[in-house]
Amino acid sequence: MHFTQTFIPTLREVPADAVIVSHRLMFRAGMIRKLANGLFAYLPLGLRSFRKVEKIIREEMDAIGALEIKPTVVIPGELWKESGRWDSMGEAMLRVKNRLDADFVVSPTAEEAVTALIRDELSSYRQLPLTLYQINTKYRDEIRPRYGIMRGREFVMKDAYSYHTDDAGLDETYRAMGRAYRRIFKRCGLSVIPVKADSGAMGGSSSEEFMVESEIGDNTLILCKSCAYAANVEKAACKSDCDAPDSIETAKIRAAATPAIETIDTPDVKTIDELCAFLKTDAKSFIKTLIYRALNVELDLSKTPGGTKLEKRKPALDAPEVYPEAFFAVAIRGDLNVNEVKLAAILKASEVSLASDADVVRITGAPVGFAGPVGLSGIPLVADTAVSALNDAVAGALAKDLHYAHIAYGRDFVPWLSADLRTVIAGDRCALCGGELYEKKGNELGHIFKLGRKYTQAMGAHYLDESGKSHIPTMGTYGIGLDRTLASVIEEHHDDDGIIWPMTVAPYQVIVIPVKYEGAVKTVADQLVSSLEHAGIEVLLDDRNERPGVKFKDADLIGIPYRVVVGDKNLSLDIPGVEVKRRGEKESRLFDINKAAETLTGMVYAEIAQLNRNGA
Amino acid sequence: MHFTQTFIPTLREVPADAVIVSHRLMFRAGMIRKLANGLFAYLPLGLRSFRKVEKIIREEMDAIGALEIKPTVVIPGELWKESGRWDSMGEAMLRVKNRLDADFVVSPTAEEAVTALIRDELSSYRQLPLTLYQINTKYRDEIRPRYGIMRGREFVMKDAYSYHTDDAGLDETYRAMGRAYRRIFKRCGLSVIPVKADSGAMGGSSSEEFMVESEIGDNTLILCKSCAYAANVEKAACKSDCDAPDSIETAKIRAAATPAIETIDTPDVKTIDELCAFLKTDAKSFIKTLIYRALNVELDLSKTPGGTKLEKRKPALDAPEVYPEAFFAVAIRGDLNVNEVKLAAILKASEVSLASDADVVRITGAPVGFAGPVGLSGIPLVADTAVSALNDAVAGALAKDLHYAHIAYGRDFVPWLSADLRTVIAGDRCALCGGELYEKKGNELGHIFKLGRKYTQAMGAHYLDESGKSHIPTMGTYGIGLDRTLASVIEEHHDDDGIIWPMTVAPYQVIVIPVKYEGAVKTVADQLVSSLEHAGIEVLLDDRNERPGVKFKDADLIGIPYRVVVGDKNLSLDIPGVEVKRRGEKESRLFDINKAAETLTGMVYAEIAQLNRNGA
Repeated sequence: MHFTQTFIPTLREVPADAVIVSHRLMFRAGMIRKLANGLFAYLPLGLRSFRKVEKIIREEMDAIGALEIKPTVVIPGELWKESGRWDSMGEAMLRVKNRLDADFVVSPTAEEAVTALIRDELSSYRQLPLTLYQINTKYRDEIRPRYGIMRGREFVMKDAYSYHTDDAGLDETYRAMGRAYRRIFKRCGLSVIPVKADSGAMGGSSSEEFMVESEIGDNTLILCKSCAYAANVEKAACKSDCDAPDSIETAKIRAAATPAIETIDTPDVKTIDELCAFLKTDAKSFIKTLIYRALNVELDLSKTPGGTKLEKRKPALDAPEVYPEAFFAVAIRGDLNVNEVKLAAILKASEVSLASDADVVRITGAPVGFAGPVGLSGIPLVADTAVSALNDAVAGALAKDLHYAHIAYGRDFVPWLSADLRTVIAGDRCALCGGELYEKKGNELGHIFKLGRKYTQAMGAHYLDESGKSHIPTMGTYGIGLDRTLASVIEEHHDDDGIIWPMTVAPYQVIVIPVKYEGAVKTVADQLVSSLEHAGIEVLLDDRNERPGVKFKDADLIGIPYRVVVGDKNLSLDIPGVEVKRRGEKESRLFDINKAAETLTGMVYAEIAQLNRNGA
Repeated sequence: MHFTQTFIPTLREVPADAVIVSHRLMFRAGMIRKLANGLFAYLPLGLRSFRKVEKIIREEMDAIGALEIKPTVVIPGELWKESGRWDSMGEAMLRVKNRLDADFVVSPTAEEAVTALIRDELSSYRQLPLTLYQINTKYRDEIRPRYGIMRGREFVMKDAYSYHTDDAGLDETYRAMGRAYRRIFKRCGLSVIPVKADSGAMGGSSSEEFMVESEIGDNTLILCKSCAYAANVEKAACKSDCDAPDSIETAKIRAAATPAIETIDTPDVKTIDELCAFLKTDAKSFIKTLIYRALNVELDLSKTPGGTKLEKRKPALDAPEVYPEAFFAVAIRGDLNVNEVKLAAILKASEVSLASDADVVRITGAPVGFAGPVGLSGIPLVADTAVSALNDAVAGALAKDLHYAHIAYGRDFVPWLSADLRTVIAGDRCALCGGELYEKKGNELGHIFKLGRKYTQAMGAHYLDESGKSHIPTMGTYGIGLDRTLASVIEEHHDDDGIIWPMTVAPYQVIVIPVKYEGAVKTVADQLVSSLEHAGIEVLLDDRNERPGVKFKDADLIGIPYRVVVGDKNLSLDIPGVEVKRRGEKESRLFDINKAAETLTGMVYAEIAQLNRNGA
């Protein structure tokens, strides 16, 4: 391809909103342009790399027997109402009414659409397992889209859905997907951190996120310095003195030596820091008590304080009975924070959030800031395991400007439930090996997830087993964001001058730069391009009437792996040569013009083979 | 691919709404399924053929130097407001409000988006010509989507946009696109009828539609039996006694022999048929007079009856002055119909439509049904050329239950303007060669169109010429519907048993059917598949545990070009063989198993080469 015949509008400047490297470089390299906030168009150069990512993903999906389909982008709202997600998806789902006032959705994901497709076709166990995937446009109505294509509103996702007769079948496909995802990212030259959620506290349904390290990552990852443990902080567990709560009996014996509980006046002291200063102690001796509101709680609360008064409801015929709303007091050590994902999981609640100030006042009988575990009534108390080790603690006294000191667990209060509720932080010890945990920010590129029968049940998918009995298939869901993957490649492979493409996703593999596109230089450049293209190499020929310096700068910016400079000087050597430089390396080499095409071809294919081998 | 490892849910029955062959066969062959009215999902088999159409289109676009980009599917409404189409696109454009109450459009076409992209990048004439294209999801909120993917709500279109410094450049790209479109359709095995709008009455801005004949076509085509003339009836011209209007002088001389005009009582007679019966004459002697309302008329009306009273307006700074609303009386022979596209073109109006009954009464001073050219005042009269040949005609007398007889053109009325206004019908004579015209119903698969500067001007695209002077580029737009193209292939290539794929778009090229997938038959079938796949042939192996009859029926239905049956009987011959049959042919041939793969490979490639040659 001649540079003058394509459309690569490179730029020196970038817009102010381009704050991350990939956004800046894709913009400057003329790969993308903004149509509106969060809506980006790929220009020819960007689309070439995008298609390569797409091809790698398609190859790996096909290789594990997943079958490509193409549902629509606009999906009837009816299907989302069947699954119940019409209400639960929130405002990030772009909803449309058509001219006949029917509801539609610009698809953010396709569990509903694909399950609707297969339910009418599924009859026999012989059709399973079945894995379908699409590579298609998705939309998420982000309030604050940022970072270019890394967090846009419209994006392309590969989303796959698998259906199985049993857990063993789901597990097999789930593991094959995990392997395929590892290959995909390696083939793209990406270092990903696979984060298993089931290695954390949650257990049960498995999922694995594929993260790349990123300063602007949405996710905080907890990693172990000594072993391979990696978890999203939302689900991370840790080892500590509090792995299991101390028993009440142990605590009571221990408490015998603790001074009796004492009420302290703490005027104008509200924060834990202020209390620490006032009482000359540290946050590890405090019991922080937070009032949480939980929705749709499945856990049996009939034996809890106030539990018999709670309303119960059966949201659907096949669904378990739940408490639509319940309040909990959550006690945690002053230096720790409550992990709401863990809390929701423990309560089997669909959602938890801090109670309103009015609810706190109603429940604790005191202003906000004076809740504590001692004397609390009418509400179940849930304590983090670390609380059970506290033998001489301070906490709010359920009255304005009063705190209790010398609180002993087991003697002065007994929680209804003890569990791991803490948000893990750097410095905690690994639950697997005891090693030190540390934090990284990460962006999620892919996610594989065992869904179970939630959607297949809600949407009425059935198959008949060998004896003719009807069953609901179990299901998995597997996604990769293509735009994000491409942007992450740039985040990982660049320098101050521009992008340094891994060969597999480079928009062109070789750029040929004639110092001046005329005479013998032109002839040699044209011949070289022709030989390379004949060998299947993708070549960009910079035929612009620009100074070599401008061409070199653009070549570095757009990051084509091999740069070949054709100039008079090297052509007039005894053995006429061209100068070849690997992007990212400093030194160039002189290639005999008669061997340049063949040698370069070998080098390009070797790099592709190496990346693909990494992925194998 | 093994049949049992893909997902091809073939069916004997079709839903009642599948009334055309391609819809029925795609449904039965398990190529598509309906998600909702007008929303279809491609299943694996359908997607394979779809991707082949896509690949052919992409190759032909790349071959003429068009550059692929990928704008978003969801486009900011702001851009449509800039071009003015936010108001003019009507309800078929799917509009969305996002959570921040901003307007968006699920793209029906992308003149705005692509022009918005290039306007910020365009600086010099050296960047032009520039042709950009996308192959992407489009949406049109059809009220009554029908005929499967032939007229769905969501579809995929290849849409290209070219920008040029001058008309010569636009013309060159326009012609290259026309050639590319012909190649695309031929390579897909389609017979298209290219319909040039500029060969018709319209002149000026050129466009060409690529039609396929179809009983359920949206368009009526007018074709010549003697020459290559083909036009959409909306724009078709014809030769007749009325090519040019008779001059008023000629008409007056001729009228000397005509009896004087006479008023006739025509109680309870309203339609032309009733009048014909009543007056014992035929419709060719009638002058039908219709009152039209025209919007944004550019034609100078200052010299017309009532013209000086009309309001004038300049809609934009650079736009010509227009009459926002004007009424016209249109006279046409009783057996002919007014072509509103021609009428709008002649009046230079953005839109024309029949006036309301109230307006007719106000303008003619008579109830609807009694308008006529004689005595009409205060409104310009536009007459079809055929009217000028009428020397003894009947028309409404501008009063209830009264008609005039013996009306002579030139003597009793003189139109303000005479022009070709008629809708051409079968039997009319070709404007080019005088041959007989006939009609066909057709579906539009593609459309190429010289847009001029409408969008580039409205959206502020500029470039600088060699002397640094700023100009607005001229523009072309070029579309192909992929889904429609694929469905049309099936409409053209099928029989009672199913689809007969042209090799270039077949989902698989060969289907291998082992009579029973076990023992020696299995071994031979597997070897054959392996050899064919090694040679690059796409093979479906029917490994299902079904009777041969079922497999044969399905093979015919899904239409794979070559069917190879492997059975014990032929394997036990002296020269062991397999039975090869071309889909659509009756006779099968016995191939030596040692040569079958090679021979078949040659046959497949020969057919692909033949179709591609047709397109060259």
